[in-house]
Amino acid sequence: MKKLINDPEHVVAESVEGFGWANADIVDVRTDPLLVLRRGGAVHGKVGLVSGGGAGHEPLHAGFVGVGMLDAAVPGAVFTSPSPDQIVPALVAADSGSGVLAIVKNYTGDVLNFETAVELAEEDGVTVAVVVVDDDVAVKDSLYTAGRRGVAGTVAVEKIAGAAAERGDDLATVAAIAARVNANVRSMGVALTACTVPHVGGPSFDLPEDEVEIGIGIHGEPGRRRIPAASADEITGMLVDPILEDLEVGRGEDVLLFVNGMGGTPLSELYVVYRQAHRLLTERGITVARSLVGNYVTSLEMQGASVTVLRLDEEFTELWDAPVHTAALRW
Amino acid sequence: MKKLINDPEHVVAESVEGFGWANADIVDVRTDPLLVLRRGGAVHGKVGLVSGGGAGHEPLHAGFVGVGMLDAAVPGAVFTSPSPDQIVPALVAADSGSGVLAIVKNYTGDVLNFETAVELAEEDGVTVAVVVVDDDVAVKDSLYTAGRRGVAGTVAVEKIAGAAAERGDDLATVAAIAARVNANVRSMGVALTACTVPHVGGPSFDLPEDEVEIGIGIHGEPGRRRIPAASADEITGMLVDPILEDLEVGRGEDVLLFVNGMGGTPLSELYVVYRQAHRLLTERGITVARSLVGNYVTSLEMQGASVTVLRLDEEFTELWDAPVHTAALRW
Repeated sequence: MKKLINDPEHVVAESVEGFGWANADIVDVRTDPLLVLRRGGAVHGKVGLVSGGGAGHEPLHAGFVGVGMLDAAVPGAVFTSPSPDQIVPALVAADSGSGVLAIVKNYTGDVLNFETAVELAEEDGVTVAVVVVDDDVAVKDSLYTAGRRGVAGTVAVEKIAGAAAERGDDLATVAAIAARVNANVRSMGVALTACTVPHVGGPSFDLPEDEVEIGIGIHGEPGRRRIPAASADEITGMLVDPILEDLEVGRGEDVLLFVNGMGGTPLSELYVVYRQAHRLLTERGITVARSLVGNYVTSLEMQGASVTVLRLDEEFTELWDAPVHTAALRW
Repeated sequence: MKKLINDPEHVVAESVEGFGWANADIVDVRTDPLLVLRRGGAVHGKVGLVSGGGAGHEPLHAGFVGVGMLDAAVPGAVFTSPSPDQIVPALVAADSGSGVLAIVKNYTGDVLNFETAVELAEEDGVTVAVVVVDDDVAVKDSLYTAGRRGVAGTVAVEKIAGAAAERGDDLATVAAIAARVNANVRSMGVALTACTVPHVGGPSFDLPEDEVEIGIGIHGEPGRRRIPAASADEITGMLVDPILEDLEVGRGEDVLLFVNGMGGTPLSELYVVYRQAHRLLTERGITVARSLVGNYVTSLEMQGASVTVLRLDEEFTELWDAPVHTAALRW
């Protein structure tokens, strides 16, 4: 294992400390427990947005803290859910009195720990709504997960719900919008290589040099199948087809097309995947009205990518376009 | 070799086509020869900025085309200079009558091809100034290069000169500012792994599993030395020390600290490097007034990072902060 780290035990804390220094105009980093908060704290009259989960998926979630997106992010250890003790102070810090929406990716540990934290925070007088993101069409009932996994669609949920909160929508409305984004977004990924979790020290799974795994999870959970390495266009088709089938999106509809890198894939390759996904959608009469390409929900240095499609309506488009000022998304 | 590509012969064209579709609000892509132009063409009364070089370093340079930065980018084949035939139309397209600044990274092929292209464009009536970026302190007279190599400092040159052009400075002024940025910026990198050029099909060099290369070039050119894999803090010191020594920056000065990923390194590790670089600068009484962390000048999927330090003055800071709207930098 060669990594630009010091001690595996401290890698998350050190990385978040560096993140905080580099983005001191956007976030405040709190330690013990480790939290990333929107600079200046909860905004009076605004619903707070909190997300979190295991580290190793950067820039998710800390990179999405800031104006127009999250109020707090809770980074666990690498690929490990944060504890309720860590989540409660985030929910409390994000609450200005208007309540908090917790955005949770569907992994059993995250869901349980957020549930416990929400109960505890509500005892402290914080009203919390929860949306569980489960956009991955690859498999149901995976390693770590009952039901579908939450993956890159989380970015769309955080951006659009964040914009709704920023414009002043109340908690019930922001929660309903977040749930509606989740109902209209689907993703699927591919891995070319595994990644190495620092405190484990070896690859998270074995993938032969001549195979790729279609439907991979963001922690290396098994996907649908392994196939001999194929062209980018062929692989892209294997991701786009199940997404479109599941989403039942069709001719005349507008979508956001998001090609996400797993961390170790060159940006140039993500654009090759984007190109083919765009062609496949356009061929079916679907309009790619918005796009996002880059490393947003990663698996450390895994080589691979995922495709996400969000069905857009006028409200989603307006909220997607609304200003955002975070480390990882800014417009 | 496993990559998300189709045919190695077409990977650059396909990637740039996808890039153009994903960023159709920012750029126009022209084929034959392949060019990325600021949408809407040259801006009347504004000096044009053109850069280019071999592909494989994305988002450099196409990702920096747009308001406040480049007017045109010329992508060659992977790690291969674009030809004069490809550069001339970019210089012509970027000229609104106010002249063009060509920003060239110091590699012999790039310098020669840009020189030829400038002569040809000037025959066509375009006034061109050239700045050659050579910020890499690692080695002199490397593979492909007489003198020092141009690496991640190029981003600072393009951003700051781009802002000067955008505010209406004339060609001589923009060229002088670009040269002044180059004179005040230094970089040095480290590789943990090699990368694989698609049309070569194997790693660009051999690096044992227990060694890293200090002072690596962005095409895998040899650096200063190979050392046994060390901690992020130790490696960061080996990059920061030669930079500070060469730049002669000291107590009381403001700098931009830029930690750049080589493409295959997790963002979380870049922040670990940033953290230590920030500590080392702060310990010496240098103020980190601006920061940038991410994959901006990459070497395909190489694992590694570089540190760049730019000495800031009031003008540089103002131009760095000026609005920019490109695919890769936006504020």
